Amino acid sequence: MPPRPPPAVSVSYIAAADPASAWRPVEGGITAPRGFLAAGITAGLKPSGNSDLSLLLAPAGAVCAGSFTTNRVRAACVDLCAERLTATGGHARAVLTNSGQANACTGERGRLDSLRATAALADRLGLAEQEVLICSTGVIGVPIPMDRLLAGLGPLVEALGPHGGGAAAAAILTTDLVDKQIALEADLGGRRVRIGGMAKGSGMIHPAMATMLATLSCDAGVPVPVWQDMVRRAVERSFNAITVDGDTSTNDTLLAFAAGEALPVEHHAALEEGLTAAARHLARAVARDGEGATCLIEVRVEGAADEAAARRVALTVCGSSLVKCAVHGRDPNWGRIVAAAGRAGVEVDPEGIDLWLGPHQLMAAGQPLRFDRAAASGYLRDRAAAAYLRDDTVVIRLRVGRGTGEAVAWGCDLSDQYVRINADYTT
Amino acid sequence: MPPRPPPAVSVSYIAAADPASAWRPVEGGITAPRGFLAAGITAGLKPSGNSDLSLLLAPAGAVCAGSFTTNRVRAACVDLCAERLTATGGHARAVLTNSGQANACTGERGRLDSLRATAALADRLGLAEQEVLICSTGVIGVPIPMDRLLAGLGPLVEALGPHGGGAAAAAILTTDLVDKQIALEADLGGRRVRIGGMAKGSGMIHPAMATMLATLSCDAGVPVPVWQDMVRRAVERSFNAITVDGDTSTNDTLLAFAAGEALPVEHHAALEEGLTAAARHLARAVARDGEGATCLIEVRVEGAADEAAARRVALTVCGSSLVKCAVHGRDPNWGRIVAAAGRAGVEVDPEGIDLWLGPHQLMAAGQPLRFDRAAASGYLRDRAAAAYLRDDTVVIRLRVGRGTGEAVAWGCDLSDQYVRINADYTT
Repeated sequence: MPPRPPPAVSVSYIAAADPASAWRPVEGGITAPRGFLAAGITAGLKPSGNSDLSLLLAPAGAVCAGSFTTNRVRAACVDLCAERLTATGGHARAVLTNSGQANACTGERGRLDSLRATAALADRLGLAEQEVLICSTGVIGVPIPMDRLLAGLGPLVEALGPHGGGAAAAAILTTDLVDKQIALEADLGGRRVRIGGMAKGSGMIHPAMATMLATLSCDAGVPVPVWQDMVRRAVERSFNAITVDGDTSTNDTLLAFAAGEALPVEHHAALEEGLTAAARHLARAVARDGEGATCLIEVRVEGAADEAAARRVALTVCGSSLVKCAVHGRDPNWGRIVAAAGRAGVEVDPEGIDLWLGPHQLMAAGQPLRFDRAAASGYLRDRAAAAYLRDDTVVIRLRVGRGTGEAVAWGCDLSDQYVRINADYTT
Repeated sequence: MPPRPPPAVSVSYIAAADPASAWRPVEGGITAPRGFLAAGITAGLKPSGNSDLSLLLAPAGAVCAGSFTTNRVRAACVDLCAERLTATGGHARAVLTNSGQANACTGERGRLDSLRATAALADRLGLAEQEVLICSTGVIGVPIPMDRLLAGLGPLVEALGPHGGGAAAAAILTTDLVDKQIALEADLGGRRVRIGGMAKGSGMIHPAMATMLATLSCDAGVPVPVWQDMVRRAVERSFNAITVDGDTSTNDTLLAFAAGEALPVEHHAALEEGLTAAARHLARAVARDGEGATCLIEVRVEGAADEAAARRVALTVCGSSLVKCAVHGRDPNWGRIVAAAGRAGVEVDPEGIDLWLGPHQLMAAGQPLRFDRAAASGYLRDRAAAAYLRDDTVVIRLRVGRGTGEAVAWGCDLSDQYVRINADYTT
């Protein structure tokens, strides 16, 4: 796999998706919104020596909405976040993230370590323990080297700053090849509002959260229940619409903070649009950085009975190992796309299927068309060679009937590199 | 991937599974049961020049039960088989199989070609068209070169014989590395009864049928509804308990024939035991020959609420790309096994999980144990190096609670070879 340079500001998906949007990309990631501070340092948790301890501090009064893994086996830190958000009624100030150890399946010790880490951090920050959350990512079953983590808290807090978004985003990565950040800005009623975000992947990515951590920040004030609803809908159309390998994880956590002057109700819809765009950017970046991937796959389904049915078809096509391998091989193998759509568990009219690969129509009314195979292969080849996050998206468009339901899902190709990464992960 | 020699008689899974069984392996495959004739020839349908046209002829009076793909996109030949079995009330005499072209998504032409092929064969065999079935396997969307198929029917019928099982089993293969045959024999009430079978894989293998063709034969007479029930249950515990890549196909078909002197009711249970054993042997052989696989993975789940819940967990673990990669990398990564179990969608008690990898216990009561990592890796390495179909099974045993439900599922590891096979399939 050719090495991919990290993008300076990875915002092109947004621009491409909705040029008419009021939201424009800016720099700064998670710390772009006013009042948010962040830091990332090396505490010695990773054998690689890469940075591994990350902190986000939200302004006083911040509300926080969380979304957590649906896996029945959850890490202690996930339980702790969920409990604290419930106890505080959706308020939190800080989130500490360590990378290197997932601290899942570590029993009572996992719980105690999460409590110790947040207590020590709360102490340093002058916050109540309940206001401090913790995320862990890395190898399942491995506990955190607590002496190193605790020793790192001092330098971490010292490093907090209004330009710390990049360092914080770097310190949460594991097998990711690039960091994932976004910052958007809009004028809402003459007032500048910003949304920031960071995320990490990059295996075990599937709907209903995955080995995925994401944090969002916003400098507009929104009531807790409104914010929770906005975040839920944005997650449904972003992180729950991506798949890398169908595996979910024990640690998946999304935390979205909002803090600032109250935003008038008439601007809530615009805020949700920006929040969804930011979440979609991060979700696509996670899918694109799927282990071993050489391109992003975007599946657009229309004509289904409803949005949920369309999403199931889109995700099934996106998640098919055979489709992913075909895209990796630059093979316009439409038969596999149709077969995957057929097993999605929703009504599909075989005689009503239309299929496009980029600009090339491959099927009409369920029948294969004569198409220029070399050109269609060339389309796939071009996408894989395109600039990262700019023009590297393979678009599969599928009409499955005459319903009004449509949805989009994102995934990536399946390469021999994926297998090598995952065969050798802990050895 | 090291080349694997085809087994002379691939029966060891059976022997290992149930040494106390009344059924013993014999030679002859699909033609081992009395009165069944078969043939396989090269009709020139495959570019490779390998044999590609297969025929099984059952004795007069044969009953036939079918099981078909659940994919909403079905090849015309699948529809034709299902229609004819319904029309005849479960009677059929012959099944023609071509390999090379799936003849799916070929619209009205696919239907007409299936009708022409069966009509011509019925004519040569002196049968009614309704009694002749057809299966196709190969690339989706490619129609059958009908002139070659029709020209092959004469030589095919001439080649029919009581020892044609091996040739018939070879002619249905596509990307399979080895043929898949079984023949079992038992004395039931002083009478010799035989069951034969053949199958092909080897990608797109998932529960509820897959790109999988299987044919079974039996020389005991059984009433149609009894036979249909037996076959349904045997399929549930065999072909519906394997997964290679989660993809199902447009053409999956299992056809099971029974013809002979009526078997007394008191021996039906014993017959079903043999039928299930034969189907399980073929299903495991299909999983083992999954594209690029180096070993069979057997996941035994116990302690679930019921058999269905246990099977869901077993299949989810078996189908996890991350688990499959870890096994391929000889990595005893128990965290991925537990994470996969946790997302199966059924109740799992995280604190009640016990886990074994072969003889090595890795977890007890949800906590990782200190285990000999080198020995556990060695277990995985040994299995991959073991004789094909003899001692190449990686056994994962998982207790998920205190219920009485248990089930077994089979799959295979995921190798870079899988990706290469499927990236380059049609190009």
